[in-house]
Amino acid sequence: MLTVFSSSHHLHHGKELKDGALTPSFEEPGRADTILRRVRAVGLGNVIACRPFGLAHYIGAHSERYVRFLSTAWQQWSAGGRTSDALPLVWPVRNMRDDIEPSVIEGKLGYFSMDAGAPITAHTWNAVAESANLALTGAELVLEGARSAFALCRPPGHHAGREYMGGYCYLNNAAIAASHAIAKGARRVAVLDVDFHHGNGTQDIFYERPDVLTVSIHGDPSVSYPYFSGNADERGSHAGTGFNLNLPLAKGTDWAAYTQALKLACQAVAAHAPDLLVVSLGVDTFENDPISHFQLKSDDFSRLGDQIASIRCPTLFAMEGGYMVDEIGINAVNVLQGFEARG
Amino acid sequence: MLTVFSSSHHLHHGKELKDGALTPSFEEPGRADTILRRVRAVGLGNVIACRPFGLAHYIGAHSERYVRFLSTAWQQWSAGGRTSDALPLVWPVRNMRDDIEPSVIEGKLGYFSMDAGAPITAHTWNAVAESANLALTGAELVLEGARSAFALCRPPGHHAGREYMGGYCYLNNAAIAASHAIAKGARRVAVLDVDFHHGNGTQDIFYERPDVLTVSIHGDPSVSYPYFSGNADERGSHAGTGFNLNLPLAKGTDWAAYTQALKLACQAVAAHAPDLLVVSLGVDTFENDPISHFQLKSDDFSRLGDQIASIRCPTLFAMEGGYMVDEIGINAVNVLQGFEARG
Ligand SMILES: [Zn+2]
Ligand SMILES: [Zn+2]
Repeated sequence: MLTVFSSSHHLHHGKELKDGALTPSFEEPGRADTILRRVRAVGLGNVIACRPFGLAHYIGAHSERYVRFLSTAWQQWSAGGRTSDALPLVWPVRNMRDDIEPSVIEGKLGYFSMDAGAPITAHTWNAVAESANLALTGAELVLEGARSAFALCRPPGHHAGREYMGGYCYLNNAAIAASHAIAKGARRVAVLDVDFHHGNGTQDIFYERPDVLTVSIHGDPSVSYPYFSGNADERGSHAGTGFNLNLPLAKGTDWAAYTQALKLACQAVAAHAPDLLVVSLGVDTFENDPISHFQLKSDDFSRLGDQIASIRCPTLFAMEGGYMVDEIGINAVNVLQGFEARG
Repeated sequence: MLTVFSSSHHLHHGKELKDGALTPSFEEPGRADTILRRVRAVGLGNVIACRPFGLAHYIGAHSERYVRFLSTAWQQWSAGGRTSDALPLVWPVRNMRDDIEPSVIEGKLGYFSMDAGAPITAHTWNAVAESANLALTGAELVLEGARSAFALCRPPGHHAGREYMGGYCYLNNAAIAASHAIAKGARRVAVLDVDFHHGNGTQDIFYERPDVLTVSIHGDPSVSYPYFSGNADERGSHAGTGFNLNLPLAKGTDWAAYTQALKLACQAVAAHAPDLLVVSLGVDTFENDPISHFQLKSDDFSRLGDQIASIRCPTLFAMEGGYMVDEIGINAVNVLQGFEARG
C-alpha cells in the first residue's frame, strides 16, 4: 500500500481550550511522524508526495466562502498586530442568526466554527491545504486502480463541516476525497469513520445526499465529544434519508462489543456497493488514549483492518485522530497491515 | 434614588478568551466598587441590601434546567479535581442537535452557553444569584411606589438567554426583574438596553411575548459582539411580533447620532405604556471604553438619564457593562443624576 505524506504538517501546532486552560493541542506533529516511522519500519510500501491541487478542489465538500475564510483567516487576524493563535469567542447558537456572515474576523471565526478547538496559527492554512491534497492524491491512486492507499493526513478532517472548523479539523479530507471521486465519475462512495469521535463534519457535508453513504462508529454523544451530533436517529434528510448511519457505543466499549457495530457498518457499506470506500482512520479507540474512552488493544486494530478488507471495495484510508503518540504508529499501521493481509 | 448593592460580587472574577489568550475578564470587581463609591460621593441616596429571593424567582425568565445547571456547574466541574475556571469547549451550531442535553458537565457547559466568555469559578453562583436578587429587590421598590431604583448588579445579565450564559452574563437580571413585575401584577413592562452591546439574552427571553417590550441601542452586529443577534429585522415572533426593537448603530457613533436612536427608543417605550421600565444600564458606550466603539462623553450620560426620565415611567436601572473602570462611576451615576434632575 502506498502512503501519501507531506512534511508540511509541521507548519501547524496550535493551542486548545481544555479543562479551562489554553494548552498545546493533543493533536501535534509527533503523531504523523510516529506513524510515518512505523510505515517505513514494517515496509508497508513506498511513501510518495502529493499531487498538486488547489482551492477549487476543496469547494463542493465545503462552501466557497468557508474556504476563502480559512485561507485568509490568519492574515485578517494578525493584521491588527495579534501574534497568538486565532481562536473564536462566540457562536450563533439557539435562535441566534447564522444567516449573516459578520464582516470582521472576530465574528467570522465564530461564524465558521463549532468549538474553540481549531486554532489558526501563522502557517495553519499551508498544513491544512496539503493535508487535503494528500487525501485527494490517495483518492486518485485508488480510482486509477490501486486496491488501497493511505493518506497520512494531518491536521485531521472529520469534525470539519460544510462551513465550520472544529475539533482540530479545518478541511474535511475524507469528504474532499469522496467528492473528488464523484467528480471523477464514481457513482457511489462510502465513508466509514472508525475514529472514537463522531464524524459530525462528514455527516454534515453529505446529510442530504444519497450517493455518499456516511457511517460512523463512535462514543455515545451524551457523554462524549462532540456531544451535539452522532445519535442513532440522525439518518440523513431529503434525498439523503437512510444514507447516514450512526452507531454510538458506550464508554468502555471493548473489541467484543465494537465488532458487533463494525459488522453492521461493513454490511451497510457493502450494501451501498460503492466505487470507493474512504475510511476515516482514527485510532483514539485505543485503550490508553488520553482523551477517549474505548478499550481496543493494539491487536484489535489488525482485526479492524481485516474486517474492512472483507468488504472487498477499493479503499482509501485517511488519517484522523489518535492521541497516544507512543503507540499511534503501531495501531494505525496494524489496521493497514490487517487490511493487506486479507488482500 | 435608592441603590441596591451586595459585596457578594467580589466572589466572582473569571478569565476570558480574548485575542487568542486566556486573561482575567474585563468584567471585574473594581467596576461595581467604583460605581458604589461614586453613588456615595455624590449623595445619590441610601445604599440598601437586597431582600431574600431564591431559585424559583429566576425560573420563567430562564428554564428550570438552566438554573439547575448554573447552580451546580462548579460542583460538577470540580468533582474530577479541576481547579481552573469552568469554560465551555464546543457548541451546538448549525445543524447540530440542541434538543438533547448532554449528561456530562463538559457537554452541558456548551449546551448552556453562547460563547467562551462566561467562566464559572468556585463562587460564581453565589455572586450571580445575589446579582439577580439586587434586580428583584429594585423591581419591588419601584412596584411599591418609588419613582426609581438602581440595582448595582454584578455580574451583568443582558447577554444571558433563556437557556444560555455568555458575555460575562449568567442570569439575566433585567429580565428576571421584568418577569417578577409581571408576576406581581404589572400588565406591561419595557426593557430599554443602552449598553454598547446588543441585549441578545433579553431579546431571546421575551421574543415571543407582547407584554414585555424589548428595545436595544447597540453597535451594529456585523462588526460588534455578539455578532449573531441585534439586527433591525429582528422584531419578535408569534404573539411577540412587533415587541422587539433593535437600533444598531455604526462604530464611532457620537451623541448627535446616538440621540436620534434614543428618541425612537423612548417613543417606543412610551407607546407601550409600561407599568415598569427596566433600563439595562451599560456605560461601555463611553468614548474611552477598552472593548467598545461608541464615542459618548461623560456629560452625554447625564443627557441620557434626562431623556429616559422624560418617558415618565417608574424606572429600575440594572447595571450591565462598562469597562473603563476609572470613569465607570462618573458615567453610570451621571445617568442616574440626569434622570433625577428631571424628577
Ligand atoms: Zn477522535
Ligand atoms: Zn456591553
